[in-house]
Amino acid sequence: MAKKKNSSKIKVAFLGGLGEIGKNLAVIEYEDDIVVIDCGLGFPDEDMFGIDLVIPDTEYLEKNADRVRGIFLTHGHEDHIGALPYVLKNLNVPVYGTRLTIGIIENKLMEHKLDFVPQLRSVSAGDIIEAGSLSVEFIRVNHSIADSCAIAVKTPLGYIVHSGDFKLDLTPIEGDIMDIARLGELGKKGIILLLCESTNAERPGYTPSEKTVGKTLDNIFLRYRKKRIVIATFSSNVHRVQQIIDNSIAYGRKVALTGRSMLNIINAANNLGYMNIPAGTLIDISEINKFKPEQVTVVTTGSQGEPMSALYRMAYSEHDKIVLGNDDLVVLSANAIPGNEKFVNKIVNELTKHGVEVFRDPAFGVHVSGHACAEELKLMHALTKPKYFMPIHGEYKHLAAHRDLAKSMGQSSNNIFLGETGMVLEIDSKKAAWNGTIPSGILLVDGYGVGDVGNIVLRDRRHLAEDGIIIVTAAVAIEEGLILNGPEIVSRGFVYMRENEELIAKLREIAAEGINKALDKHVTEWAQIKKAVSDGMSKYIYQVTKRRPMILPIILDA
Amino acid sequence: MAKKKNSSKIKVAFLGGLGEIGKNLAVIEYEDDIVVIDCGLGFPDEDMFGIDLVIPDTEYLEKNADRVRGIFLTHGHEDHIGALPYVLKNLNVPVYGTRLTIGIIENKLMEHKLDFVPQLRSVSAGDIIEAGSLSVEFIRVNHSIADSCAIAVKTPLGYIVHSGDFKLDLTPIEGDIMDIARLGELGKKGIILLLCESTNAERPGYTPSEKTVGKTLDNIFLRYRKKRIVIATFSSNVHRVQQIIDNSIAYGRKVALTGRSMLNIINAANNLGYMNIPAGTLIDISEINKFKPEQVTVVTTGSQGEPMSALYRMAYSEHDKIVLGNDDLVVLSANAIPGNEKFVNKIVNELTKHGVEVFRDPAFGVHVSGHACAEELKLMHALTKPKYFMPIHGEYKHLAAHRDLAKSMGQSSNNIFLGETGMVLEIDSKKAAWNGTIPSGILLVDGYGVGDVGNIVLRDRRHLAEDGIIIVTAAVAIEEGLILNGPEIVSRGFVYMRENEELIAKLREIAAEGINKALDKHVTEWAQIKKAVSDGMSKYIYQVTKRRPMILPIILDA
Repeated sequence: MAKKKNSSKIKVAFLGGLGEIGKNLAVIEYEDDIVVIDCGLGFPDEDMFGIDLVIPDTEYLEKNADRVRGIFLTHGHEDHIGALPYVLKNLNVPVYGTRLTIGIIENKLMEHKLDFVPQLRSVSAGDIIEAGSLSVEFIRVNHSIADSCAIAVKTPLGYIVHSGDFKLDLTPIEGDIMDIARLGELGKKGIILLLCESTNAERPGYTPSEKTVGKTLDNIFLRYRKKRIVIATFSSNVHRVQQIIDNSIAYGRKVALTGRSMLNIINAANNLGYMNIPAGTLIDISEINKFKPEQVTVVTTGSQGEPMSALYRMAYSEHDKIVLGNDDLVVLSANAIPGNEKFVNKIVNELTKHGVEVFRDPAFGVHVSGHACAEELKLMHALTKPKYFMPIHGEYKHLAAHRDLAKSMGQSSNNIFLGETGMVLEIDSKKAAWNGTIPSGILLVDGYGVGDVGNIVLRDRRHLAEDGIIIVTAAVAIEEGLILNGPEIVSRGFVYMRENEELIAKLREIAAEGINKALDKHVTEWAQIKKAVSDGMSKYIYQVTKRRPMILPIILDA
Repeated sequence: MAKKKNSSKIKVAFLGGLGEIGKNLAVIEYEDDIVVIDCGLGFPDEDMFGIDLVIPDTEYLEKNADRVRGIFLTHGHEDHIGALPYVLKNLNVPVYGTRLTIGIIENKLMEHKLDFVPQLRSVSAGDIIEAGSLSVEFIRVNHSIADSCAIAVKTPLGYIVHSGDFKLDLTPIEGDIMDIARLGELGKKGIILLLCESTNAERPGYTPSEKTVGKTLDNIFLRYRKKRIVIATFSSNVHRVQQIIDNSIAYGRKVALTGRSMLNIINAANNLGYMNIPAGTLIDISEINKFKPEQVTVVTTGSQGEPMSALYRMAYSEHDKIVLGNDDLVVLSANAIPGNEKFVNKIVNELTKHGVEVFRDPAFGVHVSGHACAEELKLMHALTKPKYFMPIHGEYKHLAAHRDLAKSMGQSSNNIFLGETGMVLEIDSKKAAWNGTIPSGILLVDGYGVGDVGNIVLRDRRHLAEDGIIIVTAAVAIEEGLILNGPEIVSRGFVYMRENEELIAKLREIAAEGINKALDKHVTEWAQIKKAVSDGMSKYIYQVTKRRPMILPIILDA
């Protein structure tokens, strides 16, 4: 990717976040300047065995590092900031975000050992950052984490507005209502392109205010005055936790936080002044048994049923500080993300077995989404009146629903661009059109390794998971045409060998036969001997078991 | 398990179906007679890698084979009949079921090569089968498969009623309404124990009639007169398929079936007279391109997003007979079972990419459940007025909700028995109480193997899936204390070896060092040498990669 000058054209591309939920990363280019919006991680598919995280491949940005004016963050959720610790190692550019966002990143970066000083810059909603020929403005929105922003990039061709993740909350718990006035003002000045999130584009109506959850919680606290109340929610939902704390205070309860990320994020938010926690309210989880059940609220991670999360450990009686039973009410103040229902159900079953009462959405109204539903998206379109529109942040069906919504408001099909990761939208004063791609892809993170687990390793892991492995070892004197030692059969994940001695003996026989035949024919190519062995074994095993374990012959020249 | 006589006591136990959805199998004993109700399979948990099916361990029944009077089937769903081909091999007792149920089993048994003649006996609702001192009566219920029954076992202590899976459908598509009169009659005669399914115990109200789906489909067929309509549903939902066919005829469409189980079950149902398909209605899927889109309805498997199902292949353009696009409407006439949402979403995304319009529940009302909601369960309790009650067929939370429902109707807590697989409920004329257990458990089916994959093999598969395997081979002259050959390192599913030569070289070094140290110390125990090697490698690998691959040293005595 050589540096390229395209004066008077804007290029917009995504390295993640189109046709998927997660690893959001937008690239906006004009002449010599590149502005990056968000730098998120994704979670592995269920067949990406052993993979911890997925991050966007940022090769394109690294090759154009001298043009990257900064990474501008809309808010502090993992799918918007989680790839930063990895990306910054190869691209140490300034990072701009609001105070809570930067606070969360500082926490994250401390866990990674960086051998450089990151350039973190706190901003406030309303701030405008110069970025070469572009300028970047942070605009307040509401979302399920505090201090969230949309971003407007001013270009010589007009504004590009990136919604970030947003909803309209007319009664926010803390901070201001989404700055609809500023969005309308920009709409009047001229927005050439709207990039708008699509998560809830399929859902009609408006997303309820976060405050409605507070009312539900108030009813629950009133009705369950005699029980201990344990509430699981996303640790980043600072406002939800604030409402739980407010209710606890109103009903004379202390609050204990549990779960590593809950402690990390709430402490960060508290230190930065995003929360209002009177002294004496918080107690350590180890202190809860000093209080009666009705005097305590526990706020915990694990609302997605994550194995080994605090709530999981409570459900399976593995939490060292808290034992749940008849005196407890557990509230799951979160939706199960598709794929997690089974895990959540398991926890609910375990809790119920212990006599715990469980409230969960949607039956009990204990959660609201952080994303705009259809009517709020329409409001965004009405305010911004963009010339061109690109639906972003969603699976294909969400993007398509958002496209149809824009059409229903009169946006011309020709001016809507439903793209995929890597596709480049070129805009000049006359038109916008897809034009080629930039390098894009994913890197898999496994332990400390970033990108060292690729398709071949994953394919092997899937194969091993499905049917296990059989290793055949023999020492052979190839010149003399003799087996000196073995063949020995060792298997893992195939069958329990001690109970299948007959099968193993037969396999040893087949392996020996394969080697001997090859030696008799004076085959001296190791690969040929190995193939003879594994073909014979493979065929027999499939016949007898209908399984296809991996077969790995290791023949030593002794 | 010696044969045991407990005159005047009834024993009831489950080998599956308590605290879980699936592998339903109930055991009812009185003196010398055992009646088995249902013999279903379960689906593997997501961490049971490579496992095709899970079946109940029926060791107890095999050891008491001379007392088993028969297996009585409530209906033809896999979770009620799927274990039969495996269980009958060791327990060839008579199998009783209604005609469709037996028809489906005949199909299944043909796929398994049995070396004996199974004793399949067709019955009709209302039939009573003598079973020693017990007698077994089939009672019509409604459900999402035709010809479903509850089962009443007459004992000297009164009736035991097993609900099977049921709903109350006052406007069934074919066949009769649930025989509430007979259930009420038995209730008056005296039901000592009700075993009642709990799937929808958490849902308030009534489950709508299957006929409501027909009305929705009618609206869809009317509105989409210009498009081809592809409908995915459960192949066993014979009534749903009948309604699709009825609508197709009304709107002048031919119907093509696709998917192996769809063809199998609908053909069986049609041959047995459970369907009304006028000649000339069905066409082969290979003929659909002879017709205009608006002249064809396709009924397909794959409503759960199953990889390689017919709908999956259509979505990914891998179906050899049908290509979907702008002219198609796809209707998912089924609910995604928890755990399958992600797969269904993927298919919806792919279809949307191809311009296909997709309707799915709950937004479009194209599916109803086959299970009783709370009010129907109350009706069952009101009709049967059982002395004792055991909630069955559900995860713990469902059983607990059903327990609470029974309590709300005045059933005494002391007479409700919420059990687990294997627990024995003993009932005499005076009381009922848990008393011990019978052997129970699960057998994992992997290919042809039944039970040969156990916990150790599964644990290895999980380990292999997570981090792969490293095999270290060396030939050693242990007496001389020399390494003759190797150590060689081979890995699968760990890292791509060619791109990590440095790491592999270092591991070879560590392995050699481990062997040499052991040899220097004149260690002659192979296990000790192996441990020295794997400990050293393991430690280094975790330090460098934060991964824990399986390490398998193979040392040959050369």
